Amino acid sequence: MPAHTISKAVVNRLPRYMRFLSELKEEGIERISSGELSERMHVTASQIRQDLNNFGGFGQQGYGYNVSNLIAEIGKILGLDKPHNIVVIGAGNLGRALAGYGNFESRGLFIRALFDADPAGTVPEVRGLKVYDMKELPDYLAAHETDIAILTIPKEHARRTAQQLYDLGVRGFWNFAHVDLALPPDAFVENVHLSESLMQLTYYMKHEE
Amino acid sequence: MPAHTISKAVVNRLPRYMRFLSELKEEGIERISSGELSERMHVTASQIRQDLNNFGGFGQQGYGYNVSNLIAEIGKILGLDKPHNIVVIGAGNLGRALAGYGNFESRGLFIRALFDADPAGTVPEVRGLKVYDMKELPDYLAAHETDIAILTIPKEHARRTAQQLYDLGVRGFWNFAHVDLALPPDAFVENVHLSESLMQLTYYMKHEE
Repeated sequence: MPAHTISKAVVNRLPRYMRFLSELKEEGIERISSGELSERMHVTASQIRQDLNNFGGFGQQGYGYNVSNLIAEIGKILGLDKPHNIVVIGAGNLGRALAGYGNFESRGLFIRALFDADPAGTVPEVRGLKVYDMKELPDYLAAHETDIAILTIPKEHARRTAQQLYDLGVRGFWNFAHVDLALPPDAFVENVHLSESLMQLTYYMKHEE
Repeated sequence: MPAHTISKAVVNRLPRYMRFLSELKEEGIERISSGELSERMHVTASQIRQDLNNFGGFGQQGYGYNVSNLIAEIGKILGLDKPHNIVVIGAGNLGRALAGYGNFESRGLFIRALFDADPAGTVPEVRGLKVYDMKELPDYLAAHETDIAILTIPKEHARRTAQQLYDLGVRGFWNFAHVDLALPPDAFVENVHLSESLMQLTYYMKHEE
């Protein structure tokens, strides 16, 4: 089945498989049955089999899953088999927090630089990464192939800045600004509206007592 | 229909309604048809009607929705009609970023204090909020009613710290640590695995070209 027919629900679960499998690998576990994986992940074994069958299976009857192989295969599906070069736009607390995530690199997700409208007002370096002035963005992107921008800027500037990044060739946007971007259809945008997740928490606190 | 029978998909959409409606209110718009709201939100008008009918409707035929009423009603459903007192555990970049979110307060979500294992190693105040030593947590929670903890600590400490918070009476957990917590069933946990959302982006960048 071609990957683009995979449902959004399955795509949402794949990174979770990656996380659990990576934990297994860290623990030195090289092989796991769908039953054991299901117990760890709190999903049914048949759900796991069904999800992975979307991509051709990877399990062997009676053997279970080879953890390293499965990480590699899911990584390929998730587009992690080639490195991604990333810039962070906005070097405030959130931008610096994301730039500090060491885990991204082990997935081929390389944050290369930060940009800020007022670099003098922030720390000059984050984990060895330089904080550039936004004015330097065109020159930087001309010299450094960059496929993803992480937007951690106020919503007032987000649309204009996203358009500027798009015009300079960036196509992937991980957007933390509280506004839906308005980009051409060949741009890819994943929005993170953190406060929405907090409101889901308060919903369940109210209703599931 | 009692609210606890609402599907997770609807609950996931309610905070999004809140965001769009709050934007309308900021723009001074007091009344909106389901058609206009649908255009802004990029969902069908019938989806909107169906979602809101789960909670008794709120729309009037031919009039549309009263923005302020709808915000208040959805706020009630989301448990935002009473204030929530929140502490942030971990005063690193991410903890400070979340403590700095001014928007939370307009929703009745009050971040009251931050805690860190090494408060001397961080800035002493964030937006006027004190950064306490983790050792002061029991005394603080005994003196200040607190219903939600935001966990922005390394995964090695997250489970133990969550259990400590639970034992001290906290029941809501907004968890940014990369580990599933193991808390009793009357705890409410909303996990935010940021890197999973970034991997969804790389998936779509690979497959929807």
